[in-house]
Amino acid sequence: MKKGKHNSITDVKGIRVGHCTLESEHLHTGVTVVLPSHDNIFQNKLIAASHVINGFGKTTGLLQINELGTLESPIALTNTLSVGTVQQALVQYMLSIDKTIGKETGTVNVVVGECNDGYLNDIRACAITQQHVFEAIQNANIIFEQGSVGAGSGMSCFEMKGGIGSGSRIVTLNQKDYTIGILVLSNFGLMKDFIPFHQECSSDILEQGSIIMVIATDIPMSSRQLKRVCKRMSVPLSRLGSHLGNGSGDIAIAFSTAQVIPHQYHQDFLTIQEIHENCIDFVFRAAIDAGEEAIMNSLLYSKTCIGRDQHIRYSLKDMMKNKYNGGE
Amino acid sequence: MKKGKHNSITDVKGIRVGHCTLESEHLHTGVTVVLPSHDNIFQNKLIAASHVINGFGKTTGLLQINELGTLESPIALTNTLSVGTVQQALVQYMLSIDKTIGKETGTVNVVVGECNDGYLNDIRACAITQQHVFEAIQNANIIFEQGSVGAGSGMSCFEMKGGIGSGSRIVTLNQKDYTIGILVLSNFGLMKDFIPFHQECSSDILEQGSIIMVIATDIPMSSRQLKRVCKRMSVPLSRLGSHLGNGSGDIAIAFSTAQVIPHQYHQDFLTIQEIHENCIDFVFRAAIDAGEEAIMNSLLYSKTCIGRDQHIRYSLKDMMKNKYNGGE
Amino acid sequence: MKKGKHNSITDVKGIRVGHCTLESEHLHTGVTVVLPSHDNIFQNKLIAASHVINGFGKTTGLLQINELGTLESPIALTNTLSVGTVQQALVQYMLSIDKTIGKETGTVNVVVGECNDGYLNDIRACAITQQHVFEAIQNANIIFEQGSVGAGSGMSCFEMKGGIGSGSRIVTLNQKDYTIGILVLSNFGLMKDFIPFHQECSSDILEQGSIIMVIATDIPMSSRQLKRVCKRMSVPLSRLGSHLGNGSGDIAIAFSTAQVIPHQYHQDFLTIQEIHENCIDFVFRAAIDAGEEAIMNSLLYSKTCIGRDQHIRYSLKDMMKNKYNGGE
Amino acid sequence: MKKGKHNSITDVKGIRVGHCTLESEHLHTGVTVVLPSHDNIFQNKLIAASHVINGFGKTTGLLQINELGTLESPIALTNTLSVGTVQQALVQYMLSIDKTIGKETGTVNVVVGECNDGYLNDIRACAITQQHVFEAIQNANIIFEQGSVGAGSGMSCFEMKGGIGSGSRIVTLNQKDYTIGILVLSNFGLMKDFIPFHQECSSDILEQGSIIMVIATDIPMSSRQLKRVCKRMSVPLSRLGSHLGNGSGDIAIAFSTAQVIPHQYHQDFLTIQEIHENCIDFVFRAAIDAGEEAIMNSLLYSKTCIGRDQHIRYSLKDMMKNKYNGGE
Repeated sequence: MKKGKHNSITDVKGIRVGHCTLESEHLHTGVTVVLPSHDNIFQNKLIAASHVINGFGKTTGLLQINELGTLESPIALTNTLSVGTVQQALVQYMLSIDKTIGKETGTVNVVVGECNDGYLNDIRACAITQQHVFEAIQNANIIFEQGSVGAGSGMSCFEMKGGIGSGSRIVTLNQKDYTIGILVLSNFGLMKDFIPFHQECSSDILEQGSIIMVIATDIPMSSRQLKRVCKRMSVPLSRLGSHLGNGSGDIAIAFSTAQVIPHQYHQDFLTIQEIHENCIDFVFRAAIDAGEEAIMNSLLYSKTCIGRDQHIRYSLKDMMKNKYNGGE
Repeated sequence: MKKGKHNSITDVKGIRVGHCTLESEHLHTGVTVVLPSHDNIFQNKLIAASHVINGFGKTTGLLQINELGTLESPIALTNTLSVGTVQQALVQYMLSIDKTIGKETGTVNVVVGECNDGYLNDIRACAITQQHVFEAIQNANIIFEQGSVGAGSGMSCFEMKGGIGSGSRIVTLNQKDYTIGILVLSNFGLMKDFIPFHQECSSDILEQGSIIMVIATDIPMSSRQLKRVCKRMSVPLSRLGSHLGNGSGDIAIAFSTAQVIPHQYHQDFLTIQEIHENCIDFVFRAAIDAGEEAIMNSLLYSKTCIGRDQHIRYSLKDMMKNKYNGGE
Repeated sequence: MKKGKHNSITDVKGIRVGHCTLESEHLHTGVTVVLPSHDNIFQNKLIAASHVINGFGKTTGLLQINELGTLESPIALTNTLSVGTVQQALVQYMLSIDKTIGKETGTVNVVVGECNDGYLNDIRACAITQQHVFEAIQNANIIFEQGSVGAGSGMSCFEMKGGIGSGSRIVTLNQKDYTIGILVLSNFGLMKDFIPFHQECSSDILEQGSIIMVIATDIPMSSRQLKRVCKRMSVPLSRLGSHLGNGSGDIAIAFSTAQVIPHQYHQDFLTIQEIHENCIDFVFRAAIDAGEEAIMNSLLYSKTCIGRDQHIRYSLKDMMKNKYNGGE
Repeated sequence: MKKGKHNSITDVKGIRVGHCTLESEHLHTGVTVVLPSHDNIFQNKLIAASHVINGFGKTTGLLQINELGTLESPIALTNTLSVGTVQQALVQYMLSIDKTIGKETGTVNVVVGECNDGYLNDIRACAITQQHVFEAIQNANIIFEQGSVGAGSGMSCFEMKGGIGSGSRIVTLNQKDYTIGILVLSNFGLMKDFIPFHQECSSDILEQGSIIMVIATDIPMSSRQLKRVCKRMSVPLSRLGSHLGNGSGDIAIAFSTAQVIPHQYHQDFLTIQEIHENCIDFVFRAAIDAGEEAIMNSLLYSKTCIGRDQHIRYSLKDMMKNKYNGGE
């Protein structure tokens, strides 16, 4: 399948990604934000859905997405024990761009995903501050780094260095090109299960990882249809070797930029476009492909990291070098 | 709130209801069908949803409604141990009106709801045949009986005679009148819990009833929104005295006749209307009101029934006479 | 049904409740915490479940409860826009009582429920700090205030002053008395819908409230069974007049103190007690009764409050005085 | 991982499988039953769960499994348009072995899974009768055929001949060997997606298949835990090349034979064993492995079939021969 221009989630028009990275001897953590639109997203919500592949996780904001089928804030990613701070920062950010929230109208639902970077990062330090979130928002751009950056700084994937990865695919519908873009925060898997290495290494510890997968598209889809896409995100995980382990918080969140749902209504009815269900397999395949590549990119772009208490995660590249060149 | 012309589910244009009733010494059972449209509903599906308030039940056909958000068959109601026969009859009926099913295109998903009429009816006899279902379909009309008729023949509600009931309400949106109609098969509740009688009677047996609630509307709504309406159907149950008992199969199924989803697609996208979420409370209130009245109607229209093994259920009217006139 | 000694959630042995209240001209908000046990609850988890009656809400921590069926932190309640701060404080509290979290073992899942007190409280001020949460924890006791206190300070219920309420009921099983206790944070409903006032008042605004219901019991129950109890919590809402309005975040969270699930395992199997499903109706009824009383108590214990921008909510008592005595 | 003695679902003690096959020019269909125990399963229920991977399907009986966490009937598999007949036959079978059902106690919930065999079978003929179900039950044994047999007679998998397959794995817990056995009815996938053939063939038609996966184990597990196992069954599908296509009814049903839940209760509490969640990854891995092998077995044991209207499905073996030997 054809890839988008940057092979990234920002190939979906209007989307930007920003990071703030904390790197020191014991700190390898950060924040990554996905800004879904240039609009005030609270006033102009996007149709959205989510699916919990495995719920050993602390992602927040999904209840309301599930009930109302809309996204009304940026999506932020961080480490597990900093979700509260990042959530509060997103609330402050939304209050700053919309003066009506909580006064003339209702409150705002913000979305924060997380993985546990505690193997490399001193996660008990809870080092993330609200300022880091604001910086990540300010840094948001169409071009953004992947690998050991932002929320991905301290993440591990298949016991190698994981983190932020992205990918995109083009789907042609009604003779027009549409894009599906995915951004992942990868932090799951045992090395022995990684398909390219399968059975060559061995490890007895239990999988304790997670993955957050953000799926964006400009294809008109309903919340129910986006949820169906989210449910397919177990496929790239399975193909790369995951067994959706007990200790994993595997969460998919999808939204479509094709149309907005106004917060204030002027009419009692909305006219909405959605894809005919008979075409949805093309979207499933594109999302699965882009998701698999996004995870691989999170490995390929990452660099070897020596973290807290001398814990080390090799990058996939260094791992391959070691394997085939007889080590360092 | 204003009621529809017949205060019944058939106030929603296009809907017809038919019964086939089996009454003899030990048999008090039957079939009721709701025909949602005059079209071939398999080719022209309706947007739909369902919700399981309590799942001690054997209703079939909900899986696909939940996944695809569409209804593609009539909805039939019967007794618990005859669901298979009725399902098979609906399949035959659908095969007869559409020659492509299972040959040139996929199969068909039919919907059958049930309650247990075993207190009055010899349910082990499994007396329903496919022919009874075809008769109920042939009898379908805008005007239909309520109370101890069709699937309602042997049902009990609050330990009185229950069965089929219906009600409707009008909602004005964009200066136009829309209708919400409900048909229930009522078979739940203990007399001591029935709000008008509260604490006047006493009973120690456990609730083992059920209720199927079919909600139809001509308001344009998405499947997600219809599901939200279904979830409110615990409210009329609660108001009348139910505690959603363990042994109950309490199921709500809703569909909108406002637009059709074509089985064959000619375009990759559909244009759909849906209600703005800010107006949905009007629909919730109308559905709750109509639902409460439908249950009351199932009691008011029913007649005292002496069933298998001399089991007896008094009608609400006879009950009231006995209470206030010192018995018959 | 018999009530517990204090007619409160703390009648379930081991449970304590604490508040921290912020009251000034424009601030009417706070934090309430439910401490489920005296143990390190992370090491000795409780079986738990949750249910989203309506998901227009920002409660956090439910994903993991649903997946694993266990509670491993206190439950805190606060206003909608302070969930992040309170969550971060609960994380800090858990880190302080357990040094292994995030270092030698996994991270911790904390639970924060919320309602929107923005009618009386300047919610945009986000005035809650972590310190307020620590104070609420320190204040936790078997005896605690109800009404306009803690998280309940600025809440409204049926357009009167609502907030914190509690109730309990005794269930006899195997010749032994067990307790079900409920604590609610009430913030829902229109006055015209309040059953005792029904149709006497009138209002056209939409319901935008919420309710968080925490259910505790010492009855041995599985997570699946506790979830069934949670689902019944729409019944007291319905009975008091709610229609589970669109704008409501109605959440029930239940846990049993009857047995602990050890974080560290020494054996591959656990032996668990659970109630036979045929007895669960007694629990349903007790929870519904206690829940209805808890909501009524949240109204009865509250005091009239003049909040931000001269917004006013009368207490139920003052309301009754005005109604029957021709005003103050 | 170690396999069970027969590498089949019947390696779990007490389980038997039986088929009834209909084969003629246009008929290639049948019934397969899984008998979970030698007991009266209605009186001695098994803990169970289910999960809908994709809900384009007509499987019946899952509602009550989800609510109560128990299985109280055999599980039958057949073609999509015969579910009603097979359900009715299972009801008759249960009535015959238990005289209290529907008279002295409640009704019975039976489970029927299905796939669409309409490519090879004249599915519109609805050729299955109740007698075929009774024959399948009579044929039930520890040793049973796989491939194009019973419900698998007319099924297709990856556009080759699919059908019934089974596999098992051994897990050691507390120094004791436990078994996980799986039986699948495979009817999904496009040839171009089949991993061993990947990209070697090409096809533009949409996937319209399904798979039913029955998972049995003697490991003590709760309904919640069995549901988690069911959710992992997307992994073997993904690994073999499926993308969980739109038109698929992919259903997993799991039960444990380790303990029974009595229908009649003599005590208010039950004592239940369940696996510690920290050990559940071993079960996940075993189920995934056994599931992948069961699907492969459904292909390996099947024979080339020429069905209705000269439609043909080659067996995997014939396919391989053709590929590597230049055809027949």
